[in-house]
Amino acid sequence: MVSNFYIPVEVFLGENATLKVGEVARRFGFKAVVITGKKSSKENGSLQKVLDSLKKHGISEVLIYDEVEPNPIDRNVNDAARLVVEEKVDLIIGLGGGSALDVAKAVSIVSSNEGSVWDYVKYPEGARLVPFYNRPVICIPTTSGTGSEVDRYSVVTNPIRKEKLVVSHSLNYPKVAIIDPLNTTSMSPYLTAVTGFDALTHALESLTNRADNFIAEEYSVKAIRIIAKWLPVAVNEPDNLEARKQMSYAAMLAGIAIDHLGVALIHTLEHPVSAHYPHVAHGVGLAILAPYVTKYNYEYRKDKYSLFAELMGYPSEPHKAVDSLVEFIDTLGLPKTLKDVGVEKEKLDRLTEDVYMLSRHSFIVNPREPKELDEIRELYESAYEGNL
Amino acid sequence: MVSNFYIPVEVFLGENATLKVGEVARRFGFKAVVITGKKSSKENGSLQKVLDSLKKHGISEVLIYDEVEPNPIDRNVNDAARLVVEEKVDLIIGLGGGSALDVAKAVSIVSSNEGSVWDYVKYPEGARLVPFYNRPVICIPTTSGTGSEVDRYSVVTNPIRKEKLVVSHSLNYPKVAIIDPLNTTSMSPYLTAVTGFDALTHALESLTNRADNFIAEEYSVKAIRIIAKWLPVAVNEPDNLEARKQMSYAAMLAGIAIDHLGVALIHTLEHPVSAHYPHVAHGVGLAILAPYVTKYNYEYRKDKYSLFAELMGYPSEPHKAVDSLVEFIDTLGLPKTLKDVGVEKEKLDRLTEDVYMLSRHSFIVNPREPKELDEIRELYESAYEGNL
Repeated sequence: MVSNFYIPVEVFLGENATLKVGEVARRFGFKAVVITGKKSSKENGSLQKVLDSLKKHGISEVLIYDEVEPNPIDRNVNDAARLVVEEKVDLIIGLGGGSALDVAKAVSIVSSNEGSVWDYVKYPEGARLVPFYNRPVICIPTTSGTGSEVDRYSVVTNPIRKEKLVVSHSLNYPKVAIIDPLNTTSMSPYLTAVTGFDALTHALESLTNRADNFIAEEYSVKAIRIIAKWLPVAVNEPDNLEARKQMSYAAMLAGIAIDHLGVALIHTLEHPVSAHYPHVAHGVGLAILAPYVTKYNYEYRKDKYSLFAELMGYPSEPHKAVDSLVEFIDTLGLPKTLKDVGVEKEKLDRLTEDVYMLSRHSFIVNPREPKELDEIRELYESAYEGNL
Repeated sequence: MVSNFYIPVEVFLGENATLKVGEVARRFGFKAVVITGKKSSKENGSLQKVLDSLKKHGISEVLIYDEVEPNPIDRNVNDAARLVVEEKVDLIIGLGGGSALDVAKAVSIVSSNEGSVWDYVKYPEGARLVPFYNRPVICIPTTSGTGSEVDRYSVVTNPIRKEKLVVSHSLNYPKVAIIDPLNTTSMSPYLTAVTGFDALTHALESLTNRADNFIAEEYSVKAIRIIAKWLPVAVNEPDNLEARKQMSYAAMLAGIAIDHLGVALIHTLEHPVSAHYPHVAHGVGLAILAPYVTKYNYEYRKDKYSLFAELMGYPSEPHKAVDSLVEFIDTLGLPKTLKDVGVEKEKLDRLTEDVYMLSRHSFIVNPREPKELDEIRELYESAYEGNL
C-alpha cells in the first residue's frame, strides 16, 4: 500500500498568531479583501487585530466583505468574487468560522477563472469547469472544527434548489493558515461543541475510509485522542486556553486527515439536512447522524472502529464506537434526533433523493457501501425517530 | 509561542511507490534526467525500475547523470546543471542516498538561475545569490536517513578548499518524494546504521533546538521513538521489511523536523570532519560527535534531553541522554573516536577554524551557545581521544 501525503499550506499556530497576518500578506501584494461574517469577527476583536496588522505592514488598501452567512450560499461567493475582480484585489483573507473560510477559498477560484461557483462544485458526474489559476488566500479560523484552513474544500449552498455542494480542487487550498486559539475563546459552549464535533467527524470518517493511508491515519488518531479529552473541557471552561489551543490543533489535524481521504456517509447524509434546514448547524446534523451511520458501518471495518472506541476511552471493540459517540454527544449536550431540530418527516424522501442526486460518489469510500437507496432512507428514519 | 509549519513536498510512501515515478513525472514534462551514484541504484535494481516506469508513461527522453559521489562535490552539481541546461531537461529525478538527492535539488537551482553552486550556499554572511526559479525535482531515496527527500537542504563539498556547505532555500524543496522501503533493503548493516544515525541526529537536534516549534516537535518525538526501536532491527535483519518501512518513515519525519528547525552543533562539528576526510561517512562523524556535544549541551535544555532519554527507553533524566547515545552507538557497532576513523590530531585546529569560518551562524540555535572557540576545540579533542 502506498500512502500519499501532501499539505501545501503554511501553518502558523499559536497564541497571537493573528498578529502575523500583515507580514504574511505582504508576500502576496498590497490590496486585500477580508471575507468574514456579519458579527462574530467584529465582536471578538479579531477583525480589528487583522486590520491593524495589515495597516502596520503596509497593506494600503483593505476591502471588507462581511455578508457571509452560516451555511454560506452561492451569492456570497459570486458577489465577493465580483468585488475582487472589479477592485483588482491581490489577496484574499478569510476570517471566521468554516463558512467565511470556505467562501474565501471559493472566491479565489471564481475570481481568477471564468464562470460562477456552481461550475466548480463536484457533482457525481464531476465539476463543469477546471480552474487554472487562483489568488493567494490566507485563512484565519475563529472556530475549531472545520479544518477548512488546511483543506481543499469549500461547501456552498444553493438556497433555491436547497443543494449543498463541495468545491474540491488543489487550487482551493489556502496559501497560509493562521490558527490563533485566542480567536476561539469567545465561542459559546454550544458553538464550541458543534464545531468540535465536526472535527471529530472528520477524524472518524478519515480513519474508517476504505482507502487506507497510514500517514493520514496518524493525524486522525491524534485528533481523536485530543478531541475526546479536550472538547468537553473547552465546552465547560470557555476560558481554558490550553483546551482552546488543543482544539485548534486537533481541528487542524482532522482537517489534514480528511483532506487526504474525503468525507463519507455521515457528511453525505448531513449536507441535505442543513441544505433544506439552514438553521441546523452542520455540526448538529453530524452529531445526530453519526451514531446511526456508525452502527450501520462498524461491522465492515472492525479494526478501525475498535481503534476509534479505544481512542475515545472505551474498550477496543467495534460496537463500542457507537456507545462512545452516543455518550460523547450526550456530554456535549447536542440534539439527538432529526425530529428534535425541526426536520419534517415528509421531507425524508427528498433528503434521500438529494443524497443520491448530489453525493452518491462518496458511497464507495464509506466502510459499508450502500447498495439500495432504501438503506439511506432507513438511516434517516432511524435518526428522525431516535431508533438506534 | 507561534509554531510555523510548512512542508510543500508531496509524499508517496510505501512498498513499490517507485513504480509511480512515471505517472508523477508526466505532470512536469517529457524530458528527464536521473541523477544518481555510480553503483548502488544499478545494483539494487531501483534505476531500472525508474527507467521502466518513465518509459511506460511516455517520458520519451531520459538522460542519466551517474557521477554523484558520497559527500558530493561542487563539480557534480555544476556538471549536471550544465547538462540540464544544454539538453533542455524538463524535470530532475534524484535517485540514491542523500548525496544523489542533495545534488538533484541543487542542480535544479543552479540550472534555473545564474552562477554556480557556491553562489547559493549559506555562509555565515548569507548566500551570494538568491534563486528566483527552479525546475521540478522528484526525490527517490535508497537509504533511510538524510530526509533530503522532504527538506530544503543540499550539502555540497568543495574538495580543494575542503569545505562542506549547505544550500538552504525554499526553492530547494523537491516537488515530490517517492519513498519506497523496498529500495532500502539492499543497504548493508553498516550503511543502515550510518544513515539511520543521521536521522536520529536530525530528530535530536530539532527536538533540542532553542527555537521551539511544537508541531515540528511531534515529528521529532515520533521519529526518535521509531528509530530507537527499529534501527537495531533493520541493522540486524536486513530483510525485515517492517523495519525498513519504519526506518523510511522515521527518516522522513526527522527530515521534516530538521527542515523546520535547522541543525545545531553536532552537524556543525561533523561537516569539517567529512570535508577534510571524505572517507568518513556523515553518519559516522555524527555518531562520534553526538555524545560529546550532548554532554556539553544537556544542562541547558534539561526538559528536552530528559524527553530524548525517555524516548530512547532510558530514565527521563537529562544526563541519561548521553548514556542512551553511547549505548545505542555501541549497539549499532559504529566507531567511537575521531582517532579511530583516521582524523589526525594536528588537524583539530583547522577543523575548529572551519567551524568558525563556515558555520558559526548555527551556534545560536544550539541548546548551549558556544562563547569561545576553545569550547569547540575541546569538544573535538575529547571526541578525538575518547574522553567522555
